[in-house]
Amino acid sequence: LRPVQRILMAPGPTDVDPSVLRVLSAPVLGHTDPEFFSILADIGTGLRQTFQTQNPLTLALTSSGTGAMEACLANVIEPGDRVVVGVAGYFAERLALIAERLGANVVRVTAPWGSPVDPGDLRRALGDASTKVLALVHGETSTGVLQPLQDMGKLAHEHGALLLVDTVPTLAGIDVQVDAWDIDMCYSGSQKCISAPPGLALVTFGDRAVAAMKARRTPVSFYFDLQMLERYWYGDHMYHHTPSISLYYALREALRLIKEEGIAERIERHRMAQTLLLDLLAEIGLEPMVEPDSRLVTVTTVRIPEGVDDLSVRRALLQDYGIEITGGLGELKGRIWRIGLMGYSCQERNVLLVTSALKAVLSRQRLGTREAAISAKPPARASQAL
Amino acid sequence: LRPVQRILMAPGPTDVDPSVLRVLSAPVLGHTDPEFFSILADIGTGLRQTFQTQNPLTLALTSSGTGAMEACLANVIEPGDRVVVGVAGYFAERLALIAERLGANVVRVTAPWGSPVDPGDLRRALGDASTKVLALVHGETSTGVLQPLQDMGKLAHEHGALLLVDTVPTLAGIDVQVDAWDIDMCYSGSQKCISAPPGLALVTFGDRAVAAMKARRTPVSFYFDLQMLERYWYGDHMYHHTPSISLYYALREALRLIKEEGIAERIERHRMAQTLLLDLLAEIGLEPMVEPDSRLVTVTTVRIPEGVDDLSVRRALLQDYGIEITGGLGELKGRIWRIGLMGYSCQERNVLLVTSALKAVLSRQRLGTREAAISAKPPARASQAL
Repeated sequence: LRPVQRILMAPGPTDVDPSVLRVLSAPVLGHTDPEFFSILADIGTGLRQTFQTQNPLTLALTSSGTGAMEACLANVIEPGDRVVVGVAGYFAERLALIAERLGANVVRVTAPWGSPVDPGDLRRALGDASTKVLALVHGETSTGVLQPLQDMGKLAHEHGALLLVDTVPTLAGIDVQVDAWDIDMCYSGSQKCISAPPGLALVTFGDRAVAAMKARRTPVSFYFDLQMLERYWYGDHMYHHTPSISLYYALREALRLIKEEGIAERIERHRMAQTLLLDLLAEIGLEPMVEPDSRLVTVTTVRIPEGVDDLSVRRALLQDYGIEITGGLGELKGRIWRIGLMGYSCQERNVLLVTSALKAVLSRQRLGTREAAISAKPPARASQAL
Repeated sequence: LRPVQRILMAPGPTDVDPSVLRVLSAPVLGHTDPEFFSILADIGTGLRQTFQTQNPLTLALTSSGTGAMEACLANVIEPGDRVVVGVAGYFAERLALIAERLGANVVRVTAPWGSPVDPGDLRRALGDASTKVLALVHGETSTGVLQPLQDMGKLAHEHGALLLVDTVPTLAGIDVQVDAWDIDMCYSGSQKCISAPPGLALVTFGDRAVAAMKARRTPVSFYFDLQMLERYWYGDHMYHHTPSISLYYALREALRLIKEEGIAERIERHRMAQTLLLDLLAEIGLEPMVEPDSRLVTVTTVRIPEGVDDLSVRRALLQDYGIEITGGLGELKGRIWRIGLMGYSCQERNVLLVTSALKAVLSRQRLGTREAAISAKPPARASQAL
């Protein structure tokens, strides 16, 4: 195996700090080893700091972020429950789909892709009906839009609903305050602003959510049963399933790096990187899709200029320079590029590189030449022999 | 992070070959990178060789083996379906529980823990009722019993049922022939005889199972939706979720090592290791729990002698020698030890070590001394600085 060395500027996974990559190779511990439980405890502490919460039920699942979506919904929803979802992008629609598969009565409150969902619309949808969950996506990776969360906890609770928030591309890159904002259930992934490898999902449940989970009458998915997982992590360590030990080493190290940097400093780094990115993109005639007020800092969506072929540009970036950015999903396919600046990938040199590489590729396309200046070479490979 | 260097002789996870540990630290690729799809294709080929099947739908999930249990059952079972489970241990009971949570009408065919389930009892339970799935555990990790699978495919199909087989502790350590034995759905984990790190679940579905999956009318778990996963792996690579990239590197390398060794040679290595283990255990007065005919080669269950304290012996093995073995689950708690000899952990030197360490610890306990001869030292730590 000699995987190429990419520069990952898609909306995740990101490049991973060498110190995080290194701990992945540590010897595997058993899942009931006291040393491993001390690692889990460290992760719990690090996650609480990152989510800005005191919630005891805060842990990492052996699954992707999509697994966390399913875990959060599955543990509280029962067939027939009403769920209001703010939908203005691919991942919010996924939340709605998962809730429907779980038997929920889903009400979608929509907005055009590229705008946040209107709080007034959400209030009207909650209306007088008994609603179990209000679900919102804080950062919509598919559109590059930030959904404001002010007063959303209050709104949900006034209507007797739990507030569920997806912070997959925002946690540790943009301010996320689970306790101060009254979020009942919050999840994220390991591979975005946390910058650990993909494969772990981060979940925190507050008191209201725990009460709803315990009050349910119908069975929950065994694999995603958060009560059993909490017992394994924080109770008598009763076996539930064998977690992906090595990824927990990496997550612990990634959380340590976040603490070392400081959450406020990290958020500022992400903000400055996007400012520079937008400046340099403007210089080569590329415009952001989203209005300044609604822009997601960590994933920037850029309109593809008229006459430019999405796929051939991205292929050239990948093949000639080893740079990964992503195209649009769903209705935005072929119309936008998505550039992620998250975690370890969020570096000034990457901003300089992606913009100058885009400039070079777009120039070549205008001139009708297809090859990079130094085209005979394969993409840069990892220097270490594997 | 400086995790201790254990010698893992519990029934999983196992120690991991250094070449597999090393690839874990390779740079992360994106989940839509052509290089990553070529790794997935290699894994598919390696899994088919290991499962001894031609099934196109053969892949690895980002979850533990318990996730694979749930995935297999969830994709074919609909509420009210009849499922017959052969239950003579903890993991078979888990299969039954998961099926029940999915709304199945579960019929347990039991046998005493320590014996296989009787084929005649299974035939009688299938009877004339319409049954969707006959589920069996090939190697019951909790008891150390091998369930014979001869004619089980035929039996299931005569009754119109699909045969589901758990091969978590057997695949790549004991003969498993998915096609020749007419198994419709089969799963395993990455961390047993495959000897990759934990966190991936291995699944293969034959034609009958695929047909049943496609014919279902009720929704399936989004995360475990095998049709979406198959499309991501082998179809147009439509995004489903972000897999744990690094673990797939490791699985690919572990499967390469299996091919290099040869399946037959690997099976023989596991057989010889248990023979030596039982000989050396007998020399120190430790007797196997299971009759020779039913013994699982890869996990050996040993009766704890009268008057010996389970926990203090295992704690001494772990603290003084860094050796992990496991105690009994459920009704066997405190009554047996379980010693795994799987994959990279299945080495003659480990057999010599665990038996001589057990001898030393048991002697100390008889003499009423608690300390190891060289007790001041901490357990051996990994030599590499992490």
